[in-house]
Amino acid sequence: MEKSRLQRQFDFILEADKEKLIMRQTRLSDGVHHENDADHAWHMALMCILLSEYSNGEIDLLRTISMILIHDIVEIDAGDTYAYDDRALSSQRERELKAADRLYSLLPPDQCEKLRALWDEFEAGETKEAKFARTLDNIQPAMLNNATDGIEWRNHGVKLSRILERNKNTAEGSAALWQYSYENFIKPHVEKGSIIDE
Amino acid sequence: MEKSRLQRQFDFILEADKEKLIMRQTRLSDGVHHENDADHAWHMALMCILLSEYSNGEIDLLRTISMILIHDIVEIDAGDTYAYDDRALSSQRERELKAADRLYSLLPPDQCEKLRALWDEFEAGETKEAKFARTLDNIQPAMLNNATDGIEWRNHGVKLSRILERNKNTAEGSAALWQYSYENFIKPHVEKGSIIDE
Repeated sequence: MEKSRLQRQFDFILEADKEKLIMRQTRLSDGVHHENDADHAWHMALMCILLSEYSNGEIDLLRTISMILIHDIVEIDAGDTYAYDDRALSSQRERELKAADRLYSLLPPDQCEKLRALWDEFEAGETKEAKFARTLDNIQPAMLNNATDGIEWRNHGVKLSRILERNKNTAEGSAALWQYSYENFIKPHVEKGSIIDE
Repeated sequence: MEKSRLQRQFDFILEADKEKLIMRQTRLSDGVHHENDADHAWHMALMCILLSEYSNGEIDLLRTISMILIHDIVEIDAGDTYAYDDRALSSQRERELKAADRLYSLLPPDQCEKLRALWDEFEAGETKEAKFARTLDNIQPAMLNNATDGIEWRNHGVKLSRILERNKNTAEGSAALWQYSYENFIKPHVEKGSIIDE
């Protein structure tokens, strides 16, 4: 018997629950627990509501938040790829495309298409909405790294040049937020030595 | 020196990080880990995007999602109150009002007012948006309780009469989702005995 529309929607919603088990390198502000992907997406969505006034261009808030909420769902299959792990980064795109094919196809066709298009838009990073979402994706962990005295930067021996390379497009979503993040979250740790400046 | 608007916004955003440490009774679909408040809000927001077509009335999706994202922030101070814990329930409202006063006042005045109004709207449960958000707030844990073979219903000896009392307004947000939830998530556990039907 074919599944009803609502059954397919709940199949996807239940599968999405697994995002809460995908752990990130970032620690929470208690300095002990690590953040999971759902935590991260929730936090970014909240930031989007509060900080959209700093976007370089006017954005469609609902579309940006929707994009944020689903941007890491592929990691249910593909796992979290640490921003400074070269080996994992080289296979990331292939793993995530395969994951997107499987996961979004759980949904009814119209919603599969809609969510997949949102994820593709986020990945391409070309629209104002995707640029702003990607800015938040970079600023949120920098804020937590700063709040935990740069412990994960120190643990991984992260270099300033890599952070700047990673953030080369962060100002495209919001020049004001990138400046705040650099001044308040990154620069103090370059001065303290928790980020290596060669 | 007075704090800048952006500093106040980040003060609130960093404080909100603590929501990820507020643990709920609900277990994740792995049947082992418990869900935190941020996980729960993220999952509800995703459900809202996918299931809004079942709302009894047409809803403003952005306002509903915003309400969902912030609905449990008060629990940073007030803690999670289990739906079937009478003692905790008796002091819940007072604890949460105090928490809302402290937490939202971290924000710049206009955003404090806006988010507080959204939370008050959720709590009152009178608008279509609040009714739909509250429907999801009840259905999401029922889905996970069902997915984990009703373990938390059994652990707490939960009675069907209490579940029906707790859900007395769930159909007001969406008759279709309440019916689906009752048939697929609750009823099978009454039949199996994991929910007590006196």
